[in-house]
Amino acid sequence: MSTSQLQPVLDRVDADFDHSLERLFALLRIKSISADPAFAEDCKQAAAHLAADIATLGFNAEVRPTAGHPAIVATAKGNTGARPHVLFYGHYDVQPVDPLELWNRPPFEPVVTKHADGRDIIVARGAQDDKGQLSTFIEACRAWVHVTGSLPLDLTIVIEGEEEVGSKNFVPFLEQHKKDFAADFALVCDTGMWDPETPAITTSLRGLVYEEVKITAANRDLHSGIYGGGAQNPIRVLTKILGALHDDNGRITIPGFYDGVKDLPADILAQWKKLGLTAASFLGPIGLSIPAGEKNRELIEQITSRPTCDINGIFGGYTGEGSKTVIASHASAKVSFRIVAGQDPRTIRDAFRAFVTARLPADCKAEFLDHSNAPAIALDWNMKPLAASRAALTEEWGKEALLIGSGASIPIVADFKRTLGLDTVLIGFGLDDDNIHSPNEKYDLKSFHKGIRSWVRILGALAAAKR
Amino acid sequence: MSTSQLQPVLDRVDADFDHSLERLFALLRIKSISADPAFAEDCKQAAAHLAADIATLGFNAEVRPTAGHPAIVATAKGNTGARPHVLFYGHYDVQPVDPLELWNRPPFEPVVTKHADGRDIIVARGAQDDKGQLSTFIEACRAWVHVTGSLPLDLTIVIEGEEEVGSKNFVPFLEQHKKDFAADFALVCDTGMWDPETPAITTSLRGLVYEEVKITAANRDLHSGIYGGGAQNPIRVLTKILGALHDDNGRITIPGFYDGVKDLPADILAQWKKLGLTAASFLGPIGLSIPAGEKNRELIEQITSRPTCDINGIFGGYTGEGSKTVIASHASAKVSFRIVAGQDPRTIRDAFRAFVTARLPADCKAEFLDHSNAPAIALDWNMKPLAASRAALTEEWGKEALLIGSGASIPIVADFKRTLGLDTVLIGFGLDDDNIHSPNEKYDLKSFHKGIRSWVRILGALAAAKR
Repeated sequence: MSTSQLQPVLDRVDADFDHSLERLFALLRIKSISADPAFAEDCKQAAAHLAADIATLGFNAEVRPTAGHPAIVATAKGNTGARPHVLFYGHYDVQPVDPLELWNRPPFEPVVTKHADGRDIIVARGAQDDKGQLSTFIEACRAWVHVTGSLPLDLTIVIEGEEEVGSKNFVPFLEQHKKDFAADFALVCDTGMWDPETPAITTSLRGLVYEEVKITAANRDLHSGIYGGGAQNPIRVLTKILGALHDDNGRITIPGFYDGVKDLPADILAQWKKLGLTAASFLGPIGLSIPAGEKNRELIEQITSRPTCDINGIFGGYTGEGSKTVIASHASAKVSFRIVAGQDPRTIRDAFRAFVTARLPADCKAEFLDHSNAPAIALDWNMKPLAASRAALTEEWGKEALLIGSGASIPIVADFKRTLGLDTVLIGFGLDDDNIHSPNEKYDLKSFHKGIRSWVRILGALAAAKR
Repeated sequence: MSTSQLQPVLDRVDADFDHSLERLFALLRIKSISADPAFAEDCKQAAAHLAADIATLGFNAEVRPTAGHPAIVATAKGNTGARPHVLFYGHYDVQPVDPLELWNRPPFEPVVTKHADGRDIIVARGAQDDKGQLSTFIEACRAWVHVTGSLPLDLTIVIEGEEEVGSKNFVPFLEQHKKDFAADFALVCDTGMWDPETPAITTSLRGLVYEEVKITAANRDLHSGIYGGGAQNPIRVLTKILGALHDDNGRITIPGFYDGVKDLPADILAQWKKLGLTAASFLGPIGLSIPAGEKNRELIEQITSRPTCDINGIFGGYTGEGSKTVIASHASAKVSFRIVAGQDPRTIRDAFRAFVTARLPADCKAEFLDHSNAPAIALDWNMKPLAASRAALTEEWGKEALLIGSGASIPIVADFKRTLGLDTVLIGFGLDDDNIHSPNEKYDLKSFHKGIRSWVRILGALAAAKR
């Protein structure tokens, strides 16, 4: 696609940007909190609102029921079957807003305001995740349709309403309606930039194994004066086991844990090192200074390409004010592993359970609860849409788009692969300081504007790329 | 004191026992829960009730205000100043009754019923701790006064109302009114028998150092997908530190922890070994089988004469249902040490704090809160009242009274020594299965009956012993 064809579309984005913002604000005003049943009607309203808007772009756009909040499925009327076919995914639901008192303004009354450092930002719950991000894509489609009368490729849009609560009803919905989602690959706009100047495509996602373990010792709570010294204490057992999960070099000690984990290719590691991620820049803002991962690894490896173990919660015994001389009968912890390509979630889960069980006194008991078992995702760096998208992003931002790993998990990517056989290209314009899931969520006005322009270019580039 | 003088008093105990039980029931019906302000009037009522009853035995008995619940101070009108003078201590307050649903009957409606194994038991909150126990002493005084018209020695009775909440206001009250408590030694009835057939005097009490530690890492909660691997996790730090407190032989690893701790004299150890306390008998009923203390020590040493460390509570991160991929900013634990003669509470506290601090990553912070700092108590085994009491107990039960150590702390004993200069003889008739502080608290009818008879004999023996 030549620049001459793109330029009018990009010009339209700039000319119409105030209206794009108005449309985003209208969506942000809808309190579509999926976790709280009190907002079920708001979720329906958000779905209806989005479907009606997308229909104006020449789509058959339907609000479709699921066992939970509804989804929107929209198929472009101009699909020919002869062009590259893209499935775009986003979610209209947002996180709860608690603690409300930490918000500087009501979370569902969006505004454009100034960040402390002078950046223009959009502030509201969902401003980034994912209403702002998915709107960059829809506004790009709008500009294409406005200027050329149609989209440059075949397109299906699916927007769900339960991403923030684990997509439990959406995945069965996908499976049930596979034929509606036939495409060559998927696009998801729910990730971030490298920094405010540097666009990025996320090509790997860590998987997540999340276990809860409960250690039981005595059959009731005991008085530590009478039993202390003689009776086993489940918190002692639990801390001894969990305290042994990492060695002094930050390496995880579970036998076999690193089996199958590959080192980064030398050229990628060299590229990542050049990015200059330092402890000062990454950990400084959160009050830390010493990378906590494997000592022989770069910080960027620790947070993206290396597997990790975190204790996300622990509880046992007396936790109120003051003191109680109790030996609890049981103690629990929530332990999660971010896993990488080459690690099998079930193998890791079983190895963790064996690690715990092997360290258990013979008269204590361990019970396990499986909260997550998602594999890592690694995209083929040579896939065509990736190269085309990367070139388009580089052109828009004037800076080479990076291929980066993400430390987090986006389970829908694995579901698309498993259910529909589709690879996913993850492109987004979020920034580290967007406060997603937290009070005062924001989206840089520049992310929104250049995000729309980026998608205009990417759609053009994908249309031009051979299928 | 010859048997001929004692026998009529003992006979009176037997003849009047049904009334003794009625009087105990009247006391048990008063809901004198000290921890809950809603029961403040009940506490006042219990104090007034007891003072009025003790006054009928020839005492100047006053309800005296403290900064908390009132205390009763009663001085026998017949005190001559020429006889041994005993200070008796008990407490009328009881523990809360939660969880109420685990009680088989309402906790303040006392009954005599059958234990599963056929023993007659009194069931109610306070049946043992301490209303039943202190009543054994008062009923013994009543029998002496009824038969002989007076008590055989000089006596002051003090009963407080805040023992279950740490005696915070009672100790200053003691200090303020020292002169009212002049005596040769103190008697406390708040401890147990060795077993249902074997009486015991508690001659050592472990002290208690109780610390709360809070580890802080990042300045806010973090998403484990973004920061996992790079950011330090305070629960990981906390479990690593607490997991290192015991070595594989159950020994506490804090440097200097065992300094000054002496081995039991060989003859005492030999005597204790003969008592036949086994893991099956002591741990079996609570569902355990393996002594958790130092491997080269007898179980009876582990629970009475050796110092211990227990984690009484731990909490951090997400502890609700399901999962949350959070790295908490802080995590806390409550850690207590039962200490023995030769260990200084402040030295142990400082050694624990140094142990934690030495293991802290440089960018994490530890804060400490001091909940208790009580030294161990070791009675002089050769003190006269001990020998006299022991002989009296042996006579009543037909089995040699044991001198035992208690794993628990009774802080008032240290307060009597520090404030009044008094040694304390600890005699009680509780049993391990009395469920004190728990639902369905009970006191064996035999403990109550023979407890009264035991005090009749002990008062006689103490009166006869040289001052």
